[in-house]
Formats: sequence, structure tokens, C-alpha cells
Amino acid sequence: MNAFSPPPRLLMGPGPSNVSPEVLAAQARPTIGHLDPSFVGLMDRIKDQLRLAFRTDNRVTFPLSAPASLAMEMALVTLLEPGDTAIIAQNGVFGGRMAEIAQRAGAEVRLVSVEWGKPVDPEAVRASILEAPQAKLLAFVHAETSTGVRSDAASLCALAREAGLLSVVDTVTGLGGIPVSVDEWQADAVYAGTQKCLSAPPGLAPITFSDRAVSAVKARKTPIQSWFLDLGLMLGYWEGEGARSYHHTAPVNALYGLHESLSRLLGEGLETAWARHRAAHDRLVERLQGLGIAFVVDKEHRLPQLNTVWLPEGVKDVPERRRLLDEFGIEIGGGLGPLAGRIWRIGLMGETCRIENVDRLAEAIAAVLP
Amino acid sequence: MNAFSPPPRLLMGPGPSNVSPEVLAAQARPTIGHLDPSFVGLMDRIKDQLRLAFRTDNRVTFPLSAPASLAMEMALVTLLEPGDTAIIAQNGVFGGRMAEIAQRAGAEVRLVSVEWGKPVDPEAVRASILEAPQAKLLAFVHAETSTGVRSDAASLCALAREAGLLSVVDTVTGLGGIPVSVDEWQADAVYAGTQKCLSAPPGLAPITFSDRAVSAVKARKTPIQSWFLDLGLMLGYWEGEGARSYHHTAPVNALYGLHESLSRLLGEGLETAWARHRAAHDRLVERLQGLGIAFVVDKEHRLPQLNTVWLPEGVKDVPERRRLLDEFGIEIGGGLGPLAGRIWRIGLMGETCRIENVDRLAEAIAAVLP
Repeated sequence: MNAFSPPPRLLMGPGPSNVSPEVLAAQARPTIGHLDPSFVGLMDRIKDQLRLAFRTDNRVTFPLSAPASLAMEMALVTLLEPGDTAIIAQNGVFGGRMAEIAQRAGAEVRLVSVEWGKPVDPEAVRASILEAPQAKLLAFVHAETSTGVRSDAASLCALAREAGLLSVVDTVTGLGGIPVSVDEWQADAVYAGTQKCLSAPPGLAPITFSDRAVSAVKARKTPIQSWFLDLGLMLGYWEGEGARSYHHTAPVNALYGLHESLSRLLGEGLETAWARHRAAHDRLVERLQGLGIAFVVDKEHRLPQLNTVWLPEGVKDVPERRRLLDEFGIEIGGGLGPLAGRIWRIGLMGETCRIENVDRLAEAIAAVLP
Repeated sequence: MNAFSPPPRLLMGPGPSNVSPEVLAAQARPTIGHLDPSFVGLMDRIKDQLRLAFRTDNRVTFPLSAPASLAMEMALVTLLEPGDTAIIAQNGVFGGRMAEIAQRAGAEVRLVSVEWGKPVDPEAVRASILEAPQAKLLAFVHAETSTGVRSDAASLCALAREAGLLSVVDTVTGLGGIPVSVDEWQADAVYAGTQKCLSAPPGLAPITFSDRAVSAVKARKTPIQSWFLDLGLMLGYWEGEGARSYHHTAPVNALYGLHESLSRLLGEGLETAWARHRAAHDRLVERLQGLGIAFVVDKEHRLPQLNTVWLPEGVKDVPERRRLLDEFGIEIGGGLGPLAGRIWRIGLMGETCRIENVDRLAEAIAAVLP
């Protein structure tokens, strides 16, 4: 059978973003054993890098060996027991997924629904907490990939803390693109993706748990429903002093890539990376508004790295995106759920986030407009 | 921060095995979108390759985006509902893990225990089925990585079929190294690893479900406890005609590597690969017996790709394995559970499985013997 040659693509969809040659080269270094002392040293370096990226001192901080969807599941099934109440804010696809996961874990879910394209409303969350003071946790999406909205993580986590609830924060698309400050927020379980603003290939999910979250796990009355996601078992591998206990075989080469991508991000500096995302976003706004294209999200709640725009008049969603892909080699994303067929999602994440890429996209869109 | 340079290693432990330069190079090709038509075509090719490797026509055959431990969990939580009875054979670490997963899924587990180092006893399984005719499934490990034992998958699956039970077969270490014939066995859920005899980097897990298994899933009265592992949702991505529905972001680059490793295996031919594993095993037996080292498993039940030997007299486990690693660049594995400190595990899997590697190991072991 023939080798697979991926076509050249500028990845401006909701993820993955383009991966740098350095990260690709790191991934291609020879595989070594997952218990090799040299690899264990790398694991420790990655945990330290993730603490810097998440801005946390949390001891329990590591990359889950699976996509971010499973990190979402880990955060929720780790903290919830059957019969617990979870307050879950939904303003897009991923809040809905959180609710489904929590229900399957036997929790009672109180949904705080917000119109898609708007941030989570702290007042509605406050009201829900007052109605369900027995709730165990509040979960919400910091950076909604389906709508391009940023919610106010600091305020929402503070609401949870004041009421004695744990907080679960999805920042899959946030980490590396906008400020994420786990300790300042006093958030309890926070997870991210590698294929968004970190620009590592998809397949891993950085996650961090506060000491409060770890105490809550230790106080559980029932075992965690998933063996693979059992935090105590997993930490025997990620945290053991000296010899690590076998849990699963870590994705060695993917971790080489993540290490390199985190080195690049931290070498650039978080603040510089955030400013780069903002500058590219500003350019995109300028270029697309010049084409008469309107943004879905109010200015103050937009994610610079994930832009949603209304489909221009007379433009068909799938055929025009296919033209961008086939004729210009540019991938952008369509809408999900109630926004399917109505919006485009334009990612400016990580390595993709460069002014020249914005210009290239703007010119391609101008060419496909009717 | 400095780039990570893995030390040169000959990987002769229980996995990962050495990865070929071609597979490493495939992994390093540029990342494209997980919904890109070109990538969807690759997904279809990988599914076809896996059907050939598993020797099955099962429609539902795909690589899970996670380590094989999670494929084990997927097979069990997909087929078991709370209150179901599962007959689980245990002759090593992984049968025990199956039992723990089944219990967490709310199943009643009937354990058929066998001494570590022996194959699963079909008569004991038959007796357990007679005692629990209401059981939903039989689960066992075809190739026990913790002991180096091969159990008789054809006979065990036949016992299950005759009694109306579904069968779950763990062949994480088997696929590509010894015959695996899913359709001939009439097995219902079978999973493997990529980092053993397929010699792709760790992180993915090929899995296949029979039509009987799919019908059993459709007849469930309760939802699958895990959102991520819900077969119906996952197939919207892996099976959709034309446009695939979004489920999670597939590990694009890891799948490039798996495709290349499967191309190499199928290009060589399964029978040729099995013969290569057998020949290397025979050479290992000859060389190690020449050094007075005894094998743990009776000859007729040995896995050629995963060899367990008793620690030679006067040899300390950890320090001597560390010498093999540091002085000779060779990784082998220690024992697990009741065999910890008593055995060594020597993998001859996939790319590692070459006569010259056997000779290099034998010479290194001879040098560290007292």
C-alpha cells in the first residue's frame, strides 16, 4: 500500500491548528520505553511546563493520554458520585456534552442555559446555586469552541468557591491563546487540548486538579466508575517517586511533541502569545468587516483565537468551504447545532496565528464571495 | 528549554517495541484536519487494514483514540449493564484488570483463576458457565503480557458461543505476532495495542466488534456509562457516509504512523511475520538456555513475542536491568504482581524481532551474569 501524503493545508478551522516543523520533528524521534528513566525525566519536565502554562502550583497536573473529550469526562466522573448535583452552564456544544457526561455518571444536572453566542451569565449561575445549595460542583466552558465565546472564568469560579462548590473549567481552546490562571481563579479541575493554541498534534489533554479536588476524590464513598480515569491509579504512574507503577503505556512520541510545543510557547512567553492572538484577531476583524462580513459574538466576549462570523448573503456553507479547501488549501470550520449552516468558524490558534495567514484567508474569502 | 533527545535504545521489554524510521517519518508529516476529506479517506484505509490484520469482516473495526487499557474498558462497558454477570478468566495482571473494570460497570464478576504462567483452563471456564448460565459474556486474555502465556482463543470463544455468551478477547500483545482470527473464532469484541507487534508508537488501540456485539449494544436498557466510549456516538465519526459527525478530534499524526505500520505488516504478510516471531523466539530459547536460564512458561503455551524467564541465580532484578539499559542500551522488563523480582520479560515484538537483536541481548545478558 502507498504511503499517505497529506495535502498542504493552512488549518484555520476549530482545530487542529498547524503544527510547527520543530514539533513534528520532535514527534519523529525514536520511541523509548514509557518507564525509561530518561522518559520519566521528560514526564517531570512536561508537568512543570504545564504548571507554567496553566499558571498553577497544583501538584496534580499532567497530560491525559487521550483527547480532550476524555479529559472532560475525567474531570466530571472524578468529582461526581451518583446522586450528587452538578450545576452546568450551557452556551454551546460543550456545555451540553458536560451535562450528558454528568448524567451518565449518575448526577442530577441543573442546566443553566444561555443563548448560543453569549457568555455564561453569572447572575443566572448565582440563582441556580441559591436554588441548589447542596450542589457539588459548577462546570462551565471558558472558551466555547462551538461559538467563539469567552466566559468570565474568574467570576464564575469565585461564585462556586463562595458557595462551597467545586469548579470544573473547560479551556480546551483557551490555553495558550488567552489568559488562563488556574490558581488565581481558584479553579478545581481545568483541562485543555493540545491541538488548539498549543499547536501540538491532537491526542493528548493537559489537565490539572487543585488540592481541594484531590481531597474530594479521597473522600468519595464510591469508586470512580472508570478504571482508566481513576485519578489515584493514574497518579501511581505520573507521580510516583523513583520507580513509577505501571498503569498504561503513555503515548511516548506524542509527548515528545507536546514537550516541544510547550517549550515554544513558554519560550515566546504567555503574554506575548496572547498579544499575538489578539493582533491577528484585530486584523481578521478589519479584513472581514471590509468584506461586509459580520461577527456573531459581541466584541467584548470574543475569543481572538476562534472567530465566528455569519455566512455572507448568498454564500452556501459546504460548497464554499470546500472551495476554500480545494482551491486555496485553507480549512475553516462550519457551525454546530443551531448554528450549523449559518456561521463559519475561523481559528487563529497557535502556529496558525500569523498576520500573513489572516491576509491569505481574507483574500481567499474575497475570491469565493458571490 | 532544551529539546529532548531520547537515548538510543533497543526495546526488548513488554512494549513499546522499536518503531521503524518509516513509521516515525509518517508520523512527522504535516497535521491536517480530522474532518478533511483526505483524512477521512485515510480512516477508511486504516479500517480496511485492521480488518485484514484481525482477519475479520466486522463492519465495526477502528482504532480507538487512546491506549489499549481504554479499549479493554470500552469492550466491557459497552457490552455489560449493571446487574449483568461476566465470567472473567484471570491468569495474569490483565485478567484482573478486566474484573475490576467489569465490577465498576456494575456487573457481577465470576472469576476463573488460573496460576500465573499457565493458560486459561477451558474446563474451568466450562464449569463456570454451567454454574452461571445467565452470564452475558466471557472475557479472557489471549496473549498475557504479564506472564508470556498464550491461551486457546478458538476453544474459549467456542465455549462462549455454544452457551450463548458473548466473548471479549484481549490480544494487545498478540496482533501481528501470532495468529489472530476474529471471524474464525467468532469472537465478539477484540482489541489490540499498537506498540507491541505492530511497532507503531503507543497511544492507539485497534478494536473490532461483531454484529452480535453491535446488536447487544442496540438492545441495552441503560446508556453506556461513558460518553467517550459510547459506541453509537463514536461510530457517527468513524462510520458516517460522506460527512462524518464530530465526536472528538482524532489523533491525526498517530494515525499516519499506524497506517504506515499496518502497511509494513500487511506488505510482509501475516504468516511471514508470525514465522519471524517464532524464529526469533527459537533463537532466544537456544541462546538463553545456553546460559543456563530457564523459561517460565511450558513450551506449548509460550508467546514467541513475549518471553518470561526465571531470574538467574545470584542476579538482582533492578540493578542488572539497569546495567543492561545503561551499559548496553537494551530495555527488558521485570515481573509484575506475584512475579515481581522473580522473572524478566523479554519482548521480541514487531521491528525488534530480529535474530541479530536476540544475539545482542544474549551477549549483554552473558556479560552481566555473575
